[in-house]
Amino acid sequence: MKQTEFNLDDAIAILSRTPASLAALLEGLPDTWISATEGADTWSPYDVIGHLIHGERTDWIPRARHLLAGETRPFDKFDRTAQFSESQRKSLPELLAMFADLRRDNIATLLEMNLTREDLERKGMHPELGEVNLAQLLATWVVHDLDHVGQVARTMAKVYTTTVGPWTAYLSILHDRQNKL
Amino acid sequence: MKQTEFNLDDAIAILSRTPASLAALLEGLPDTWISATEGADTWSPYDVIGHLIHGERTDWIPRARHLLAGETRPFDKFDRTAQFSESQRKSLPELLAMFADLRRDNIATLLEMNLTREDLERKGMHPELGEVNLAQLLATWVVHDLDHVGQVARTMAKVYTTTVGPWTAYLSILHDRQNKL
Repeated sequence: MKQTEFNLDDAIAILSRTPASLAALLEGLPDTWISATEGADTWSPYDVIGHLIHGERTDWIPRARHLLAGETRPFDKFDRTAQFSESQRKSLPELLAMFADLRRDNIATLLEMNLTREDLERKGMHPELGEVNLAQLLATWVVHDLDHVGQVARTMAKVYTTTVGPWTAYLSILHDRQNKL
Repeated sequence: MKQTEFNLDDAIAILSRTPASLAALLEGLPDTWISATEGADTWSPYDVIGHLIHGERTDWIPRARHLLAGETRPFDKFDRTAQFSESQRKSLPELLAMFADLRRDNIATLLEMNLTREDLERKGMHPELGEVNLAQLLATWVVHDLDHVGQVARTMAKVYTTTVGPWTAYLSILHDRQNKL
C-alpha cells in the first residue's frame, strides 16, 4: 500500500482538470456512447456528470466547511441518486458547463480557505465511516473524480463487449466490475 | 452481453477524441501523477502514452491494410513493451503531441479506405486469437483506447490509496485490478 502525504497543490492539479477531461471525453459524442450503461442499476456517462454536479453542490465544500467549523455532529448524508431528478431535460453540454462552473467556484473557495497543515488534520464525523480528517476528505474528492472518469471509459468500452469478437480475451476493461448503485 | 453492430462513425467519434482526452487528463500535471504506477510491472500514465504511440505506428492501420490486402499469413505480433526503449528522453507533452499527430494521420487513412460493409467483414488471421475481421479490429482499437484511459485514471487514483483514510471503503477504483504487463 502506498503511503502518500496529502499535498494540496497536487490535489488541485487533478480537481481543476476534471471538467475539461470529461468534456474532451464526452462532448459531441453520439448518443450510443453518452447513454450507454453497464446494465441494470448502473449509470451512463450522462448520469455520472449529474452525480458530479450534485457532489459540487452538497458534498465536498460543505463538508470541508463543516470540518473547519469544528462541528461535532456527523456530516449530512450524500444522496447518490439525486441526478435522476435534477438532470432532467438538461443536455449533456449544459451539464458539463454547469459542472465546470461549480468546480471553478469550489476551487476558488478552497484556495480562499488558506489551509494550514493543522487545518488539514482537523477531524470530523462521517455518518457511516466515523472519524475522518480534512486531508482525507480532499484526497477522496480527487479519487472520486478519477473513479468516475474510469467509470465513463469502462461504460463506453462495454458498448463493444461482443463487437470486438475474439479480442475480448485481451481487453481487461470488458471484464471489469460494474459500478452498482 | 450486448450485441452492438459496428458503426464506423461511432468508432471514429471516440478514436478522434482520445488524444485530446488524454492531454486534458495529463498535460501539466505534477510528476506525482505522471510517473505513478500501480506497483511492480505496471505502467505509469507516461508509459501508456508511449504504448499508444507504438500502436499507431505498428498495430491498427498496418493490420487493417493487411486484412484488406487479403493476406493469409497472420498479423505481425505487437510489441507490448516497445515504449520503454522508444519513449526515452521524450517529455510527456512531446509524447502527447506525437500521439495526436499519428492518430490524426491514421484517421485520415481510415477515412480514405472508404470501407464498405463487405470490407468490414474481411477476415484475417491473428497470431494467437485465430480468425478475426476488420470490424472487430476497429472495435478493438476503440476499446483499447478506453481501456488505457481507464488505466490512467485508476493508476493516478491509487496514488491516494491510503491518503483517503476510511473513505477507501467507498472508492472501488482503489481496489480494482492492476494492468500487469
